[in-house]
Amino acid sequence: MRSMLWSIVWTLALLVAPMSPGQADEPLALWNDGAAKKAIIDFVAKVTKEGSPDFVPPAERIATFDNDGTLWCEQPMYFQVLFAFDRIKATAEKHPEWKDKEPYKSVLAGDLQALSSQGEKALLEIISATHAGMTVPEFHAIVQDWMRTARHPRFDRPYNQCIYEPMVELLQYLRAHDFKTFIVSGGGIEFMRPWVTTAYGIPPEQVVGSSGVVKFELQDGKPVLLKESNVEFIDNGPGKPVGINHFIGRRPIMAFGNSDGDLQMLQYTTISGPGEPPRPSFGLIVHHTDAEREYAYDRNSLVGRLDKALDEAPTRGWIVVDMRRDWKTIFPAN
Amino acid sequence: MRSMLWSIVWTLALLVAPMSPGQADEPLALWNDGAAKKAIIDFVAKVTKEGSPDFVPPAERIATFDNDGTLWCEQPMYFQVLFAFDRIKATAEKHPEWKDKEPYKSVLAGDLQALSSQGEKALLEIISATHAGMTVPEFHAIVQDWMRTARHPRFDRPYNQCIYEPMVELLQYLRAHDFKTFIVSGGGIEFMRPWVTTAYGIPPEQVVGSSGVVKFELQDGKPVLLKESNVEFIDNGPGKPVGINHFIGRRPIMAFGNSDGDLQMLQYTTISGPGEPPRPSFGLIVHHTDAEREYAYDRNSLVGRLDKALDEAPTRGWIVVDMRRDWKTIFPAN
Repeated sequence: MRSMLWSIVWTLALLVAPMSPGQADEPLALWNDGAAKKAIIDFVAKVTKEGSPDFVPPAERIATFDNDGTLWCEQPMYFQVLFAFDRIKATAEKHPEWKDKEPYKSVLAGDLQALSSQGEKALLEIISATHAGMTVPEFHAIVQDWMRTARHPRFDRPYNQCIYEPMVELLQYLRAHDFKTFIVSGGGIEFMRPWVTTAYGIPPEQVVGSSGVVKFELQDGKPVLLKESNVEFIDNGPGKPVGINHFIGRRPIMAFGNSDGDLQMLQYTTISGPGEPPRPSFGLIVHHTDAEREYAYDRNSLVGRLDKALDEAPTRGWIVVDMRRDWKTIFPAN
Repeated sequence: MRSMLWSIVWTLALLVAPMSPGQADEPLALWNDGAAKKAIIDFVAKVTKEGSPDFVPPAERIATFDNDGTLWCEQPMYFQVLFAFDRIKATAEKHPEWKDKEPYKSVLAGDLQALSSQGEKALLEIISATHAGMTVPEFHAIVQDWMRTARHPRFDRPYNQCIYEPMVELLQYLRAHDFKTFIVSGGGIEFMRPWVTTAYGIPPEQVVGSSGVVKFELQDGKPVLLKESNVEFIDNGPGKPVGINHFIGRRPIMAFGNSDGDLQMLQYTTISGPGEPPRPSFGLIVHHTDAEREYAYDRNSLVGRLDKALDEAPTRGWIVVDMRRDWKTIFPAN
C-alpha cells in the first residue's frame, strides 16, 4: 500500500509540475527561440512518440552531460582546481615545508603563471595532496564546507550557484520525458557527489567521473573507505565512452558537452558502431560566446578548449549552442 | 502530456501488480514462514513507514545483491568459469598450440583437478584469453548465445534459468517498496549485463562487478569499445564496498550475500562508520543447506566458501537463510 501511495504522490507531483506557469505552455522557457531549442524539442518529441519508428523506450533514454563548462562555469579555472588551491592554503600551517617547495610555493604565493609553467604533473600533485588521506565522508564534508564558504572571484557567489539555469531546465525537461540524466565529467566523482543532487536533481549513482583509488578497512571495528593518493581513472576524452560503458552499460541517445574532452562521448553517442543499424541520437555543444554575462572562449583556451569538436560538429550534425544568443539567463537568481 | 501519460501508466501498473493473487495477500509467497521471512518483512515495514523514526526516504533505499550463490547457482563451479571453459573449447581450432600448453591443455582434456592445481593464475589466464580481444557488443553476443545453448550439467537447463525464484520474488518485493536494487558481484560486469535485466529486472546501470580494461577508438570512422586482457578491478571481498562507493556513492541499507566474498559488503552496510549515528540496516546470508534440491556447502567449499561471515552473523545480527527450510522453491518452473 505504501508503495502505491508513493507512486500516486510522485504522479501527482509530475502532473502538477508541468502545469506551473511558463512550463506547460512553453517548454525550455529559458531558451530563446532558435535552431538549438527547436532541435532539442523536435528530438524529444520524436523519440517519445509511441508507435513512431524513432520511438525509444524509457529505459533506453539515457542522456549524458559533461559538467565543467556544460552544466556549470569552468572559468577562470576548473572549480575543482580552485578548491584544491584553497585546500593548500587552508592546510599550509600543518605543512611548513610547502613554503619552499614547488608546486605548493606557487599556489601559496598565488602565482598561477609560475604554476602553469610546471605542467600537468604539478597539478596532479596538488590534487593528490588535497584529495587523499581522509575518508570519503570526511572529504564530502570538506567539499560541502567549501561550497558554503568560497565565492567565485568574478560573480561573487558560491560555486554551486554558478550553474547554468537553462541547462538545469533542460535536465528537468528531459526527466519529465522519462530520460535518465547522468553526469559524465572529467572532474572527480567524490568532488561532485556531495552537491550535484541539490544543484541538478541528479542522484549520486548517476555521476560518472574521474576517481582516485579508495581502500576499505575496518578501523577499531568500524568500516572506513580511505581515499588514497594515486589516480584510478581519468574520465575525459576517450575515457568518457569507457566510463559510460563501465558505469551505465548502455550507449546514451543524447550527449551534451562543451570541449574537446567531450569529443569521444559525442562520437560514441551519435555514430553507429560497426555493424550497428542507425538509431536516433543527439549531440550538443555549449559554445561559450558570452563575455559579458559569462566568458567567451574556444580554440585557444587552456581551460575547456573547444577546437576539434567544433570542427566536427557540422559533419556530425551536432547542435552548437550560442550561449549569448540562445540563453535568456545564465545563472539562477541569487 | 506524454510524460504524464507514462506516469499514469506506471502508476496503474504498480496499483494492479500488488493486487494479483498470491501477492497482495501474501508477500514473499515463495518463502516459508520463519525468522528470515519475518525479518525481511518487518525491516521493510519499518523503513517505509512514513513518520516513523526508522523511515528511510525512497532515494536512500539502496539494496545490494551478490550474484553467484545469492541470486543464481554457483556449483559445480562459478558459471562464468564454465563459460570460459566452453569458449576455450569452442575456439580451440584457431589455437592449435593450446593442445600442449597449460592451462588450456587441462581445460580441453576436461581435467579440472589438474587445472585447479595450477592456482588462480591459470584461471585468470583463461578468463583473459576468453574475455578479451573483441568489442563489448561482440562479447555480449557471445554470452547471449551461450545462455541460449549451454545447459547446467546437473539441472539440464540454461544457466540463466538456474536463478533462485524466492530471491527474484524478493527483488520484486523490494522494488515494489521503492527500493533500488543493485547487483554487486565478483563476476564480470560485461558477463552479467546481457541477461540480468530479463532474469532479475535489474537494468545494466545497476550492475556492479569485476571488470577488465576497455579502450575506446574509432575504427574506419566508427566508435568501438575494445575489451583488453588486463584486469581493471576485482569486485570481491574488500573490493565490494569500494565498488559500491564507486558506482553508487551511497551506503546500502540492505545487503545480501552468501560467502566470505560478501563479508565486507555486509560490514559496510550494517556497521556505522566512525562518528556516524546508528541507522536502520539489514544483512542477509543465503546458506546453501539443500543438497537435494540444490547444493549443501559452506566452510570447506572451494566455490563460495562461507566461513568468517557465518561466524560473524550472530554478532552482527545478519539473517542466515536456511535454503532447505526457508525456500518453497529453488528455480523457476521450466
